Amino acid sequence: MLAQKYIDMLNKKSVIRELSEYAVARGREIGYENVFDYTLGNPSVPVPDSYNESIVRLTKEKSGMDLHGYSQSLGIREVRTAVAESLNRRFGMNYTTDHIFMTSGAAGAIAHAVRLVTVTGDEVITFAPFFPEYRPYVEHSGAVLKIVPPDTSSFQINFDAFESMINEKTMAVLINTPNNPSGIVYSTDTIKKLASILTDKSKEFGHIIYLISDEPYREIVFTGVDAPFVASFYDATITCYSFSKSLSVPGDRIGYVAINPACPDAKMMIVMCGQISRGIGHNCPSAIIQWAVSENLDITADISVYEKNMNILYDELVNLGFEVVKPGGTFYIFPKALEDDAVAFCSKGKEYDFIGVPADSFGCPGYFRLAYCIETEKVMRSLEALRKFVKEQY
Amino acid sequence: MLAQKYIDMLNKKSVIRELSEYAVARGREIGYENVFDYTLGNPSVPVPDSYNESIVRLTKEKSGMDLHGYSQSLGIREVRTAVAESLNRRFGMNYTTDHIFMTSGAAGAIAHAVRLVTVTGDEVITFAPFFPEYRPYVEHSGAVLKIVPPDTSSFQINFDAFESMINEKTMAVLINTPNNPSGIVYSTDTIKKLASILTDKSKEFGHIIYLISDEPYREIVFTGVDAPFVASFYDATITCYSFSKSLSVPGDRIGYVAINPACPDAKMMIVMCGQISRGIGHNCPSAIIQWAVSENLDITADISVYEKNMNILYDELVNLGFEVVKPGGTFYIFPKALEDDAVAFCSKGKEYDFIGVPADSFGCPGYFRLAYCIETEKVMRSLEALRKFVKEQY
Repeated sequence: MLAQKYIDMLNKKSVIRELSEYAVARGREIGYENVFDYTLGNPSVPVPDSYNESIVRLTKEKSGMDLHGYSQSLGIREVRTAVAESLNRRFGMNYTTDHIFMTSGAAGAIAHAVRLVTVTGDEVITFAPFFPEYRPYVEHSGAVLKIVPPDTSSFQINFDAFESMINEKTMAVLINTPNNPSGIVYSTDTIKKLASILTDKSKEFGHIIYLISDEPYREIVFTGVDAPFVASFYDATITCYSFSKSLSVPGDRIGYVAINPACPDAKMMIVMCGQISRGIGHNCPSAIIQWAVSENLDITADISVYEKNMNILYDELVNLGFEVVKPGGTFYIFPKALEDDAVAFCSKGKEYDFIGVPADSFGCPGYFRLAYCIETEKVMRSLEALRKFVKEQY
Repeated sequence: MLAQKYIDMLNKKSVIRELSEYAVARGREIGYENVFDYTLGNPSVPVPDSYNESIVRLTKEKSGMDLHGYSQSLGIREVRTAVAESLNRRFGMNYTTDHIFMTSGAAGAIAHAVRLVTVTGDEVITFAPFFPEYRPYVEHSGAVLKIVPPDTSSFQINFDAFESMINEKTMAVLINTPNNPSGIVYSTDTIKKLASILTDKSKEFGHIIYLISDEPYREIVFTGVDAPFVASFYDATITCYSFSKSLSVPGDRIGYVAINPACPDAKMMIVMCGQISRGIGHNCPSAIIQWAVSENLDITADISVYEKNMNILYDELVNLGFEVVKPGGTFYIFPKALEDDAVAFCSKGKEYDFIGVPADSFGCPGYFRLAYCIETEKVMRSLEALRKFVKEQY
């Protein structure tokens, strides 16, 4: 019989997707350039030329089976080495080849990380606001996702709530910094305090509580922002990375799991990832894509536009009286709506073709997310619509 | 805590991998050209030029986000359409875009297919000899894999044993034709009889028993062999395909699920696959690879070498007195060992640098698999070693 759980999921429509589809449909009526579509977190800046050049050169230089053959089940060894070296160079770590497992993006990485450290019924804690896909990522592995309510004053961690929720069933804590949807980067103080609690609680409960650090926005950090490398503060850190945002290649499905060498059994955990793959049909990202990123590890697409867009929107939102914490990175900003019901607020915005996403599904009702990975020129034009919307409705 | 089930898997070494590693190590001693390494099912013929040309052209012609952006969660629509049309053209089917779901190879396809039609505790039946990865593919979804013993006279289906094992918990039957490891192609009679039993048993138990047809070797069929398109014989067929073997691109991780339009709820099942992806970190194969295969659907690499190699090996094996059923496709041949213990037999072969794989893990003790996806010249040279091995040991 068909698995009912997936049929049930079909009925739960994604708010982000619905609004995105609305924006595209509206674009067909009035021209998409006139729809201020802030719904989707799709990178908007071009892929670096060197990345496409790598692909073209690889097809010419590598023989068929080197390029198109099975990669080893943990990823291509040279690629894993290059990833480790890049992390060490940039963050002062000491990863080796054997601490890196190549994955199909961060989604693939988290699918492995959760299965690595939980069994059915174990708990994973994350912090609101959070990426809604964390729910299927965690729950379909059999683990239970617990959500710590937000600290809306700063969107750092609400530690009091966290400490009251952590218990002997907690096997992992899942964080996302820089954060989707808040745009906030966890400070060094936040990470240190989190690490200290995890260390204490691991001792108290007699098992390691792992820190799964989901970092697809790691390279998108704005001027002067304190953006610590999470793993350097806690031994049992499983870093999940995606190149989707830094290189503007979300469709290429490439990322990795990096396990802190200081984590007990780190190398065995990487080998275990290869076993997990067998049960979920993962079997490595495309070999050609692995090779291509390995030649472009220390560069990014021209992500400066995101900071420019953020500043324009932030200033205008503040001017208009929105309560909003200034983002430290990503391409999201997360203001409080001008009425309690952010769904109603965003619905009114549609009348002005200003399309944001209410944050109920991010675990933070009353707020909305703007994904400003769009052209700066369009951000500028959107301000007039935003002003009119606020003036006429509030 | 670390998930014990994956630690336990680390201790179960793969016979194929061990022998393959032995062959490579031995190659370092005496030159790999002198090791007759028949262990691994890696395609040996070059990728078609047009495939690499597609990749190069795509990087030049498509703008960044068309090529590297997120593909829709079910796969790129144009690619799904092209796959459906190719299947219809070649097999007289009537698939539409909405019956195709793009996956990371056949492993990804089967991961979705099993989750689609089973819940924890349901049974999936497969037929020995079978691809050993079926065990993690099925069991890690929570379902139970049941193995029907082989019909060693033909390596078609042992229907008596099958009918005695099918019961009200059977939700799916998983077949692989052309077959790894036997090289046998199920005949039209076999598929018709299987379809007839599944139809009767579905009625008897009051639920559809799905047929999951794993077809990575579909294009590698030898002259004159009857190779029916499975889905055309049974409505509730979920076809799982990989381009790994036909285009020699196993490292590119690309395949699809195709659900027979005649299957009840076929289109909904495809949309359900998108939901399953969310829980296993799948999120589509690489977009650039989807585009590339869509331009190369009706061609294959030059797979004629496999038939040539098969004939050379088959004739020699018969001459030497092996009991062996002539393969109808794939790049495998599956003789009976010359003693009861195929592990001992293969171990003795190593002394002659003739490396085959004993079939215990394929559910068929006493037999061994030769993967002849190697150069014909090397197959020829291996015959002398095989003759010496047989003469001196038996």
